[in-house]
Amino acid sequence: MIYADYNGSAPLLPSVREHLKQRLDSDIFANPNAIHSIGQKISAGLEKCRQTIADVVGCFHDQIIYNSGSSEGASHILYSVLEFAPANKKVIITSKLEHVAILKALSYYEEQKHFQVKFVENDIDGRIRLDHLHNLLSIHQNEVALVTIMAANNETGVIQPYLEIARLCTEKKIEYFCDTTQLIGKDDFHFTKSGIDYAVCSGHKLGALSGTGFIMAKDPTKLSSMVFGSTQERGLRGGTQHYLGVETLAVAMLDFEKNKTKLSSLKAARLKFEADMKKDFPKAVIIGSSSDRLPGTTLIGFPGLHGQAVQIELESHDIFVTTSAACSDNQPETSAVLRAMGVNDELGRSVIRISLSYSHGEKEYAEIARVLKSTYNKLGKIHSY
Amino acid sequence: MIYADYNGSAPLLPSVREHLKQRLDSDIFANPNAIHSIGQKISAGLEKCRQTIADVVGCFHDQIIYNSGSSEGASHILYSVLEFAPANKKVIITSKLEHVAILKALSYYEEQKHFQVKFVENDIDGRIRLDHLHNLLSIHQNEVALVTIMAANNETGVIQPYLEIARLCTEKKIEYFCDTTQLIGKDDFHFTKSGIDYAVCSGHKLGALSGTGFIMAKDPTKLSSMVFGSTQERGLRGGTQHYLGVETLAVAMLDFEKNKTKLSSLKAARLKFEADMKKDFPKAVIIGSSSDRLPGTTLIGFPGLHGQAVQIELESHDIFVTTSAACSDNQPETSAVLRAMGVNDELGRSVIRISLSYSHGEKEYAEIARVLKSTYNKLGKIHSY
Repeated sequence: MIYADYNGSAPLLPSVREHLKQRLDSDIFANPNAIHSIGQKISAGLEKCRQTIADVVGCFHDQIIYNSGSSEGASHILYSVLEFAPANKKVIITSKLEHVAILKALSYYEEQKHFQVKFVENDIDGRIRLDHLHNLLSIHQNEVALVTIMAANNETGVIQPYLEIARLCTEKKIEYFCDTTQLIGKDDFHFTKSGIDYAVCSGHKLGALSGTGFIMAKDPTKLSSMVFGSTQERGLRGGTQHYLGVETLAVAMLDFEKNKTKLSSLKAARLKFEADMKKDFPKAVIIGSSSDRLPGTTLIGFPGLHGQAVQIELESHDIFVTTSAACSDNQPETSAVLRAMGVNDELGRSVIRISLSYSHGEKEYAEIARVLKSTYNKLGKIHSY
Repeated sequence: MIYADYNGSAPLLPSVREHLKQRLDSDIFANPNAIHSIGQKISAGLEKCRQTIADVVGCFHDQIIYNSGSSEGASHILYSVLEFAPANKKVIITSKLEHVAILKALSYYEEQKHFQVKFVENDIDGRIRLDHLHNLLSIHQNEVALVTIMAANNETGVIQPYLEIARLCTEKKIEYFCDTTQLIGKDDFHFTKSGIDYAVCSGHKLGALSGTGFIMAKDPTKLSSMVFGSTQERGLRGGTQHYLGVETLAVAMLDFEKNKTKLSSLKAARLKFEADMKKDFPKAVIIGSSSDRLPGTTLIGFPGLHGQAVQIELESHDIFVTTSAACSDNQPETSAVLRAMGVNDELGRSVIRISLSYSHGEKEYAEIARVLKSTYNKLGKIHSY
């Protein structure tokens, strides 16, 4: 079996499974906020994990606020910044390439809270246009409450120039929230060096338990409680922490750190696979092919074929991919991200997303190429009737 | 070891551990929103669990919205009702016995959103006064946005007359949110029969994984997204579901259902323990002793002793209790709940909370009584110097 849906959700890492198995045989289960020694052990563990995670993502431990994952993290950041924004700051700058969780939240602030959402233009390779961002920032400089542009796209894997965006925002003294959900654990990232104000992480994208994640905040005191509670997470996020989830997140972070040298060979294998597919199927399209992309992500389409038919065929050979984003799989049309990149429906409906991790390489890509080629040949013939 | 902090957090149930161990040896890990068969298997599992949980808590499966636990659930319900309340409904009715997560959220709506919070009076045994609630509802009938009064108190275990509250609210056509966090899994509960509009559950209180829980809503369409996302939970709660957490929650619910006949013997053992303590230590006080309380919860104090000293002494005999609520353990004063019950500091500072589950009975209480008696004797002597 080749599970190639890491952008949707990663399976539990072997190291995470090992940790959990040992944990299940222990008796260390309690509320980390309790004063007894079991609670205190868990609390100490949470803090140790916070330092481990902080070291890997390049921030200070007190810049990390645990939560249930990136959707909550993004909603929390947007709430903190927008709900309490000064009355004269009513512009939000974003892109049409953002995850639906961000776009839906922004629609809410537009419709209910009188914000104006401005979209930075992007090129056909799915990168935002920095010159246009610069223009927008100059025009709206004193009215901008927040810039929110992602680090890497979940569907295409295209990496945005988030360092340049952060630099521009810093220069203009405007806060920048970067949705780093897809980048963390799949490529190098250093929060402090990036200059980003707010970033997010979902544990299940890294092979940790789902329902766990965190916010990174340059200045956490700027956050306001959205989930109210007691003193957990210094009053910034209520609720008993998902301590087993946090432990697995720290294990997954260390796993990534230990293995990240493998990313370059993953990328090389992916590029070779893509070139190979293009050679045999010149009509096939690698979406965002000219852009820097996540090492293990390919969104490939063959105009006229149906992506779901391709996906099902691959699955019959034990290769698991999706058509686009997990979250929009039920939409039979071209995804909004692809439409924003100017992709037409014939191509848009044909795409499948192959997303692998640093544990994969040439072997998996060779097998995927073999099956995908035979699939394209098979379905292409049906299609031609 | 006797772990007696079930109101803080329950250890993972043996049945939950067994489920997780089997699960860790499987390869069924994916995004439940993906179209491939692994995702679909998990999605089907989530729905099966939803039905299992619904059957145990007495509601329809589509009245359950998964989330990270009760703090999120409470914040989400309060947000949904209050943020979108009509301009003429600016009164919230609650009690001083609520969990700090509720009280903090209500302070926010009072300070930032111009609500008035009215507190229902309670008696010295920690039960709200229904006649006073009736008065408040009559006075403010057309202005009340929400009544929020808990089912069972986390510190004292006192059970509120939530069925009568629901009946009153239904009569007055006012929405009622009942914080059922401590009740579910510790006593009988039937959402539909209760007449409550909104209720919440935290998995870790039942011996499931932490970071998992759900809202029950009589009419879920009245909820608004607080955590934005795609179509997860019918658009009401974004974010990839914590599917392993949900699975453990269903296992824990079935465990409770199977064992709930043991609750009566737990309660009998608890009452016998309390009577025994009172017989030997007439000055000892069982907080809320005249009230109906959770079967396995005792908050006991010995005026003049320091609760934390008692807790430490018990711990040296491998009995794990807390002083009050896990969330307020770091506050050395009498808890707000006890102050609301008229408890003075001498007694308030002396209390320890013993909270057990249906897996316990006479044996555990006998051991706790033995150690607690020797502790009271020992510390009482030190105190008298």
